[in-house]
Amino acid sequence: MDNGKNGCSFLDKVLNIVKQERASNTPLIRFKHPKDLEAILDLDVTIGVDDEKLEQCVREVLKYSVKTDKSIFRNQLYGGTDPYGLSGAWIAEAFNTSQYTFEVAPAFTLIELKMLRHILNLVGIPNGDGIFSPGGSLSMLYGLVAARYKAFPEVKMKGMRALPEVVVFTSEDSHYSIKKAAHWLGFGTESVKVVKTNENGQMVVKDLEEMILMEINSGRYPLFVNATAGTTVLGAIDNLEIVADICKKYAVWMHVDACWGGSLLLSQKHRSKLRGIEKADSISWNPHKMTGAPLQCSVFLVREKGLLHEANSAAAQYLFQQDKFYDVSYDTGDKSVQCGRKIDAFKLWMMWKARGDSGLCQLTDHVMKTAEFCMETVARRPGFRLVSEVLQCPNVCFWYIPRFMREKDENENWWALIHKITPKIKELLTMSSQLMVAYSPLRNHKNFFRLAFTFHPKLEEAHVLDMLLAIEECGEKVTMAML
Amino acid sequence: MDNGKNGCSFLDKVLNIVKQERASNTPLIRFKHPKDLEAILDLDVTIGVDDEKLEQCVREVLKYSVKTDKSIFRNQLYGGTDPYGLSGAWIAEAFNTSQYTFEVAPAFTLIELKMLRHILNLVGIPNGDGIFSPGGSLSMLYGLVAARYKAFPEVKMKGMRALPEVVVFTSEDSHYSIKKAAHWLGFGTESVKVVKTNENGQMVVKDLEEMILMEINSGRYPLFVNATAGTTVLGAIDNLEIVADICKKYAVWMHVDACWGGSLLLSQKHRSKLRGIEKADSISWNPHKMTGAPLQCSVFLVREKGLLHEANSAAAQYLFQQDKFYDVSYDTGDKSVQCGRKIDAFKLWMMWKARGDSGLCQLTDHVMKTAEFCMETVARRPGFRLVSEVLQCPNVCFWYIPRFMREKDENENWWALIHKITPKIKELLTMSSQLMVAYSPLRNHKNFFRLAFTFHPKLEEAHVLDMLLAIEECGEKVTMAML
Repeated sequence: MDNGKNGCSFLDKVLNIVKQERASNTPLIRFKHPKDLEAILDLDVTIGVDDEKLEQCVREVLKYSVKTDKSIFRNQLYGGTDPYGLSGAWIAEAFNTSQYTFEVAPAFTLIELKMLRHILNLVGIPNGDGIFSPGGSLSMLYGLVAARYKAFPEVKMKGMRALPEVVVFTSEDSHYSIKKAAHWLGFGTESVKVVKTNENGQMVVKDLEEMILMEINSGRYPLFVNATAGTTVLGAIDNLEIVADICKKYAVWMHVDACWGGSLLLSQKHRSKLRGIEKADSISWNPHKMTGAPLQCSVFLVREKGLLHEANSAAAQYLFQQDKFYDVSYDTGDKSVQCGRKIDAFKLWMMWKARGDSGLCQLTDHVMKTAEFCMETVARRPGFRLVSEVLQCPNVCFWYIPRFMREKDENENWWALIHKITPKIKELLTMSSQLMVAYSPLRNHKNFFRLAFTFHPKLEEAHVLDMLLAIEECGEKVTMAML
Repeated sequence: MDNGKNGCSFLDKVLNIVKQERASNTPLIRFKHPKDLEAILDLDVTIGVDDEKLEQCVREVLKYSVKTDKSIFRNQLYGGTDPYGLSGAWIAEAFNTSQYTFEVAPAFTLIELKMLRHILNLVGIPNGDGIFSPGGSLSMLYGLVAARYKAFPEVKMKGMRALPEVVVFTSEDSHYSIKKAAHWLGFGTESVKVVKTNENGQMVVKDLEEMILMEINSGRYPLFVNATAGTTVLGAIDNLEIVADICKKYAVWMHVDACWGGSLLLSQKHRSKLRGIEKADSISWNPHKMTGAPLQCSVFLVREKGLLHEANSAAAQYLFQQDKFYDVSYDTGDKSVQCGRKIDAFKLWMMWKARGDSGLCQLTDHVMKTAEFCMETVARRPGFRLVSEVLQCPNVCFWYIPRFMREKDENENWWALIHKITPKIKELLTMSSQLMVAYSPLRNHKNFFRLAFTFHPKLEEAHVLDMLLAIEECGEKVTMAML
């Protein structure tokens, strides 16, 4: 290919642009309000521009983009990427193909199968099956579809109208994707029965059993329990062993949403927190979260081999011909609800190949050690108060209580003020580019902060102390301004 | 960051690896059967390896991967990528973030909105809304969900059991994703009513109207017509204007699956083929197909502003807080069924910014010219026979009839032999790395070839002639071996 308008020369510039725009001295964020940013950026595409101008526009976009690879990006459950994973993502993009058939993705198909096999062994379901999906919410859909098809195979042809009234269970701290899934799949959100959590965010399993019984007595069919291994906010892990017992007793499908906490399975030390996961009927795990695979990298696993294919196949004649010249059982696309499907397994394979089981184990242990340090520090630091004192996943949740509010009567007004101050502190932290941190209310808890930790970049204790200091400083500045 | 086991130095190697493994002298494919390829590749990840060994393993994987960027890759409706698009994909991966909130993706959010606006103008629905989705099949799900919610908002809470019996319509040549969608969403595949197509692959609109009336008379609710602008095999475009009239008459939602043919809208000359698309209620288009954005780049559009949000929102408190310090209407994530969502708009923006409307117009005209040349050549070349003689999208479908079969009685056995020989020719073409071409049966047609053309790499007439020659040569070789 020639250069110039063919754009090939632009590819040569990408690495430099990325390196320069992510350089260590660039701020985490240069926040601009939407309308202001619209006025700054030259986004119109009507008239083409030359490479020089394009580079300028791209750099401007990146200047105002968040540098999620910095240690002070703690806004979400993802963050910096594993450089091996990023290398894999780049290569997969360059070798642009779809995961559906062996003929167009021979090596990538084997890699997806190998990674699924390795992960199935890791979770303790060696004979299961799985697929990479475009995110945890889609994995939730896969789980519900599999459970429904297993219980009522007629649903595929006849739809939900042919089924009895079906209910699914999830904890109040679980991810909202189950509600979206219940809507999309035609269950309706009312079919989602929400089980209370204890103070540490774990499903109250006694309530689960009672609720299942109640639903059965009301003539409804309990289809699916969504246990969570790593809730979004507190990082809580439900008691999977007891959930498994209950599911077995009432013949309910057990799904484990381990999108966040699944990464703990990589650690010899911490994997016991997910004990019972090996009894699940289906599991989702997002290596694009804690583990640092570039977005998207999401795994859906299912115990019963063949079920994914049976449930989802449509046997398209133009794609999954049975008269091909090779073993078409390697055409895995008909297990998927997607047609074209990105090569998300390759980046994970590269990370894993580079680090091996032990390398990933070390990163997991380190991330948990960092979170432990953070929790211990928060526990004894004046002005900080933990929301939950049990470290399950590497989430540390706490309120910052400004000096002038300490040792006051913690009545409704006091909490209302905390609720207001927390987002204000976050605003100041963001505006000053010191830290991007999550905040959230939860159940009866007013707005609090969540510091969650991920594999990349690797943090030291000093980083954590800096973050807490920044929160403290901004917390006091904010209250000064309010007084 | 330091190098070595942190993997940053590996990123520096990626461009070279990609360039070398995609060099012009590498074969399109080095086909190995699955078991043989498994034996060659070192895929196990249990033990980590050093960078040198990793590079070796990666190169081996790429050696046996298909070079989809070559002109002789005509196996699917995607192919080579636009280098600007690939640059955009690499940058988006490096700036790893999710499209859900403005705070973590400020510039990327504005870019998605800008691209949606530009594309909405292009299709003629300037006041509509949209979202980038992970592929055309997901866009089909979005379409059905939007239509269902619009007609029966109670479905969100109550599910499909609260609805009357609902049916949807699609042509027999349309994409199989509507069947998967009907299963997943709880309609059941029986609710998909298949309308016949004419010899050029277009929906017989007279039948559509009759079928709608019949369903109404049987007490079922006609919800959704899926018109296709560019069927997978023949590239047929349904008569969108008439479909729109019928949909309006019976108050049925009109969806246009323009995943493949939507790219023709980029051309002043060819856009009239999609006349009527501006009357649709929803549209899907995959710029990762003809236009050459790297996989995945898929757009779902809807006429009614606000509907996507209303239908899909779950208002997660931890993510879409309403007490943020900026205008949260820029948090677009709750329009989506996904939570984390890749920055798929950025690569498309880069391509468009580089080329402008006129650059993309030229590429569209060129691809259609190439297809026209191919069709004309096939029409008059001995031994080739067109399946459809009308060029709609840049798909050219034909049988190759080996010499010994020409001017014979074309009875059932003759066609059975053609059906068998076609995949054999494909096998030989693949094994000899001369050409990867699609084949398929369709309706009563026995297996035939499909040459479909995409923007990248830009083909000349000589490329097309080489492909036809390769088919001819392999066609004769195969029959020699069979005789």
